[in-house]
Amino acid sequence: MKARFIALLTDFGEKDFFVPSLKAVIAGINPEARTIDITHEVPSFDIRAASFILFSCYRYFPRGTVFLAVVDPGVASGRAILLAQTKKYFFIAPDNGLLTLLLRNEKIVSLRQVTQSRFWLTAGRTTFEARDRMAPVAARLTQGLSPKELGPTVKIYKRLKIDEPRRSSHEILGEILYEDKFGNLMTNIPFSMFPRSRRPKSKPGIVLNLGRIRLDKFATSYVEVKDDRPFFMVNSQGLIEIAVREGSAAASLGAKPGDPVMIRFPR
Amino acid sequence: MKARFIALLTDFGEKDFFVPSLKAVIAGINPEARTIDITHEVPSFDIRAASFILFSCYRYFPRGTVFLAVVDPGVASGRAILLAQTKKYFFIAPDNGLLTLLLRNEKIVSLRQVTQSRFWLTAGRTTFEARDRMAPVAARLTQGLSPKELGPTVKIYKRLKIDEPRRSSHEILGEILYEDKFGNLMTNIPFSMFPRSRRPKSKPGIVLNLGRIRLDKFATSYVEVKDDRPFFMVNSQGLIEIAVREGSAAASLGAKPGDPVMIRFPR
Amino acid sequence: MKARFIALLTDFGEKDFFVPSLKAVIAGINPEARTIDITHEVPSFDIRAASFILFSCYRYFPRGTVFLAVVDPGVASGRAILLAQTKKYFFIAPDNGLLTLLLRNEKIVSLRQVTQSRFWLTAGRTTFEARDRMAPVAARLTQGLSPKELGPTVKIYKRLKIDEPRRSSHEILGEILYEDKFGNLMTNIPFSMFPRSRRPKSKPGIVLNLGRIRLDKFATSYVEVKDDRPFFMVNSQGLIEIAVREGSAAASLGAKPGDPVMIRFPR
Repeated sequence: MKARFIALLTDFGEKDFFVPSLKAVIAGINPEARTIDITHEVPSFDIRAASFILFSCYRYFPRGTVFLAVVDPGVASGRAILLAQTKKYFFIAPDNGLLTLLLRNEKIVSLRQVTQSRFWLTAGRTTFEARDRMAPVAARLTQGLSPKELGPTVKIYKRLKIDEPRRSSHEILGEILYEDKFGNLMTNIPFSMFPRSRRPKSKPGIVLNLGRIRLDKFATSYVEVKDDRPFFMVNSQGLIEIAVREGSAAASLGAKPGDPVMIRFPR
Repeated sequence: MKARFIALLTDFGEKDFFVPSLKAVIAGINPEARTIDITHEVPSFDIRAASFILFSCYRYFPRGTVFLAVVDPGVASGRAILLAQTKKYFFIAPDNGLLTLLLRNEKIVSLRQVTQSRFWLTAGRTTFEARDRMAPVAARLTQGLSPKELGPTVKIYKRLKIDEPRRSSHEILGEILYEDKFGNLMTNIPFSMFPRSRRPKSKPGIVLNLGRIRLDKFATSYVEVKDDRPFFMVNSQGLIEIAVREGSAAASLGAKPGDPVMIRFPR
Repeated sequence: MKARFIALLTDFGEKDFFVPSLKAVIAGINPEARTIDITHEVPSFDIRAASFILFSCYRYFPRGTVFLAVVDPGVASGRAILLAQTKKYFFIAPDNGLLTLLLRNEKIVSLRQVTQSRFWLTAGRTTFEARDRMAPVAARLTQGLSPKELGPTVKIYKRLKIDEPRRSSHEILGEILYEDKFGNLMTNIPFSMFPRSRRPKSKPGIVLNLGRIRLDKFATSYVEVKDDRPFFMVNSQGLIEIAVREGSAAASLGAKPGDPVMIRFPR
């Protein structure tokens, strides 16, 4: 399992010297490693958004990719650095819940704490662990270093409280997980939770409640909708998403991540 | 004609998982393909701006580059995906006018609809065609797949209504095409349309009218101008551009893309 | 000394066709050269910020990296293009002070003016020197072209007025150099200037004055601080930095780059 790609996900922004410092360190250790930016525009300290973004794209990366994900309000506090190995991938992240959605979905081959300072830029204190500890470790993994060399296995890790959607006979209760740049609102409700008899997407009578707002248009794509009323649909992740044609559902509904969502099926 | 570079142009923004999903799919199919971001900050759904940006830089890319350009309000509506082959390049884009300026300028070797689903990630429905259909096709092209394999040729494609500038004996009538990040306003008027006798740039008496505003300073560079009055010049694309020294012409003139521009030559 | 990496630093933004034009030109000359974006979000024309960002990350790049740094209000004015060679790196930048902090810190092997137009895209006038002159020269350097081929050595170059911090027996007087995306305020005062007896970071009694504001919390990391009061610390560059836990020091203090900072040690 030889990796060549390192996927980077941070809340560092792109205006400063933080992201290029990571890339420089990686290039210095393994010039053949190729970095791919997932994003560096995660809202500052928003571990939940980072967890969702990582979850939404990791499976498209080639086998062997090393993911370096850093949204880290606890940097330099002594919180652990995790290394999770799955069947296809490696994930490096602070132990603060960032890997929550991912590890719910993937079978873990091994989960370790990164403690072996001989692979770090500096063995001493640092306030920039992504550059001084995590980036060098990511680069070493692309060279074939075994996770065993990096630290001991652990069993317990921090998880975010992201409720799983709950289904009763005529309802599914979930929440908004994420707002994308277009203002589309992605929920945590997968279409696969719909009762089988309700799956044909044109089936009438399915309603989505968002607080006091009631949406009754369940569309199969953005363009099926001809006006600017909000509707809901199955998005490219297989999740229920609230959208407005060529507009922002978040703005027009005043909704945001964390808000509860209920889907009702006709009896 | 073996391509290695894929140039990406979208309105997806950089905060979400959309752009890395494209790069991940490409890396999975051809790890040797190298992506170059043109931009992902095209204003949402602004096909016209995308058309101009593509037109403004494509010719600097190496022979064989595959351009993947996606500003696509009609995604999942059944609008076609186009593949245009020119002497040096490939262009993949939704059939919505995005290639308008480019195809006006380039000789088309072949123009096809991308219909062969065997090269897609999924043959089924999708609301993310850039990831599931266009990115895999772009990656295949860098491996030498022939456009013939991808779908039938077409003769008709959608074009934006972008007027060509019109010239009479003492005037050229055009419009503002684009506002860049500095607030410079690029017009659709090439300097090459100026009557030969007016080409020496220092020639006095040339006037630019923008609505009721009249600019009489025709400069050869940003620094020739010593104050903060708006002026016009020949930009790096060979087009007439309205600028303010170290300031925003768009803000100081209240002008924007689409506004008409008239250039008057002295008799 | 064979370079493969080109690090790009500009104020061009990422919404236009400027940055991809540079990358396209580089790929056309040397497809093996690999570009790394430092940032393109330097505030427009802010040479001082660019100087600080470059200074803050260059040393992490691999030996042989070519840095192409362009914040250039004087483009097309006839100001020189500089090429500085140091023991490990090459730096190309307009002669406007951008290299000030770097060249204070690095021993210069040679400093030249880039004048040999045979390596440019066009020998004629241009308003986009980064694309037409600097990018091709950067690409050539990664192919092993000797700096001698590019132009004559120079002895004088423009420097920004960035004061060095001054130390007296019980005080250090410096200034704020930079505000990062989190609102952290980085000063020009290195921790190494602290009197030896004051270095233990937990030493009480050290005070930082910012105008009339007095900070008395000198912390070793972001998380040691439990409330949202501003504090100061040694950052990952070894510089004194003013921060607020999970908040913006710049916003809460109303401070900005250029503001004077005084650190007082107890007698």
